[in-house]
Amino acid sequence: MITFHIEKPDEKLVPELEDKINNLAKPKGSLGRLEEIALQIGLIQQTLSPVLSNPVNVIYAADHGIADEGVSQSPKEITHQVVYNFLNDGAGVCFLARQHGFNIKIIDAGVDHEFSPNPKLTNKKIRANGTRNFLHEAAMTTEEMELALQYGADVVTDCYKEGCNVISFGEMGIGNTSASSMWMTCLTRIPLIDCVGAGSGLNTEGIKHKYNVLKEALDNYKGDGSTSDIMRHFGGYEMVMAVGGMLRAAELKMVILIDGFIMTNCVLAASRLHPEVLPYCIFGHCGDETGHKRVLNFLKAKPLLDLGLRLGEGSGAVCAYPIVQSAVRMINEMHSFQQESITKYF
Amino acid sequence: MITFHIEKPDEKLVPELEDKINNLAKPKGSLGRLEEIALQIGLIQQTLSPVLSNPVNVIYAADHGIADEGVSQSPKEITHQVVYNFLNDGAGVCFLARQHGFNIKIIDAGVDHEFSPNPKLTNKKIRANGTRNFLHEAAMTTEEMELALQYGADVVTDCYKEGCNVISFGEMGIGNTSASSMWMTCLTRIPLIDCVGAGSGLNTEGIKHKYNVLKEALDNYKGDGSTSDIMRHFGGYEMVMAVGGMLRAAELKMVILIDGFIMTNCVLAASRLHPEVLPYCIFGHCGDETGHKRVLNFLKAKPLLDLGLRLGEGSGAVCAYPIVQSAVRMINEMHSFQQESITKYF
Repeated sequence: MITFHIEKPDEKLVPELEDKINNLAKPKGSLGRLEEIALQIGLIQQTLSPVLSNPVNVIYAADHGIADEGVSQSPKEITHQVVYNFLNDGAGVCFLARQHGFNIKIIDAGVDHEFSPNPKLTNKKIRANGTRNFLHEAAMTTEEMELALQYGADVVTDCYKEGCNVISFGEMGIGNTSASSMWMTCLTRIPLIDCVGAGSGLNTEGIKHKYNVLKEALDNYKGDGSTSDIMRHFGGYEMVMAVGGMLRAAELKMVILIDGFIMTNCVLAASRLHPEVLPYCIFGHCGDETGHKRVLNFLKAKPLLDLGLRLGEGSGAVCAYPIVQSAVRMINEMHSFQQESITKYF
Repeated sequence: MITFHIEKPDEKLVPELEDKINNLAKPKGSLGRLEEIALQIGLIQQTLSPVLSNPVNVIYAADHGIADEGVSQSPKEITHQVVYNFLNDGAGVCFLARQHGFNIKIIDAGVDHEFSPNPKLTNKKIRANGTRNFLHEAAMTTEEMELALQYGADVVTDCYKEGCNVISFGEMGIGNTSASSMWMTCLTRIPLIDCVGAGSGLNTEGIKHKYNVLKEALDNYKGDGSTSDIMRHFGGYEMVMAVGGMLRAAELKMVILIDGFIMTNCVLAASRLHPEVLPYCIFGHCGDETGHKRVLNFLKAKPLLDLGLRLGEGSGAVCAYPIVQSAVRMINEMHSFQQESITKYF
């Protein structure tokens, strides 16, 4: 089985980093979250002059058996149609990636569609038509889960070898807010009702049906309740791959940008397996999906943006990236009180 | 006296803009605030394909007589020292401006310091050592106020002629949170105590002293309570110039980015003179200063960021700019359901 060796960033550098930040010519603390992010990245990179290089947004895509139960507003075919839109540079995350200089890597983790070979699409299909329906059986086998963790991690290693040290993760998969709600309720003990939301646009009646399906699935679950068994039982492949990707990214001391509801539940699972992953994570945004704010609170995460985004694809993480860049510019480019002969007044 | 002719953007284009946004290949509404901003800018520019060009951050700087009462943590000399840091590209807003492609224009509206000529600094001094102390007398004369409105507007006309259609306003002036608190309480009727905060870093005792000074000044005020009399009586020059700049920008149908507590009070005053200015404004951030959230609520403004910034200089407006750019890219670059043959599922 794949193992990860993640070290928490060494905190010995904290006083030096704080000293540098507090000597920049501004009222102490007046750049708020930018100061916190600069400190965090300084620790991750163990330097007073951090650098962000070659950002990548990895999108794992897969289908979900649970979609057969009508838990989503969107038909299943949307998964592969939106993957084509990624390939054509027309999707939501694509303009954000162009704006902020991200490469996009698209991974087919198990989309229920046969794609023609395309250099932009990496075929890592675990199973041709996506996960099994977790209302009736486990979404995947143990072997499939281990393979998904491995594939997810491999993609990140490739990014790292290409000079990337800051990475965001996104997903595409009709039905994956359902799987995420199951991970969330099982891993946090927050009642299921508070973990279930509208996904891509269910109305009240639709949300009620989704809840009833998921409640039945929860009642049917007879596993051991361990993090890996929850991941395996409820899936999906793209989410397990993201867990593998996040753990590898932390192992390689990369800055990890966290997107919306689904990716927040992936980092929840990742942090259950390896709590040391969290200091590497910057949370991009708090989305509109019910439960997102709660799972963020559970993780004590303070997202950078709150813009009502609920698109997935990594869009909330990439959209927040300029703020991360601002933090790095601040610590590298702002002049100090001493440099500018400004009276230090605190 | 200077007059402004501001037209509210024509709303006839709303249905066409909404149609274009709702046909982009994403769940309806799933790009949240980006969709709202795209609609707003489309209306301002009266087009389905808006463009942002040559952004400028105008910084008006001036000193305040009220600073003599010890209402700020910072000594008065900080005003001119930080202006030098602007000129040396080392201040907080400078790295943000470089990051997002803003020109910075620095206007000396009445800094208590003799600057040597510098091509980056525009001398529009209304009075050599700043405003008078409003605890004892009006901060400025009527003639000075009119001149400040005119100068503030002229700068914006220059920017417009240079091809700028999106502009943010910033300030530097020790004592200007005090003046802002006076504008706020007088123009909103929110009690003074809820309008007074720490500024650049006062402790509890310092805030109490500041409140007592401002309370006395409020009790001493015997003017007619009109918006222009409040502006004149409490100053400062940089704030009145910003009001003139905002009104001219709206007159020229430019997108206006609003910074922190001080600039929010300037747009409050501007909107009292001409309510039509508000549809041109995008609020960058909600800062930490007491009262900022309240004045934003009063204006029904929804700022884009909440990052604990309280630096001024336009930093919160410039920091939010990439989100405004994202909105414009969205409406111009995202593919539609039709283009991508994606099933439209709402």
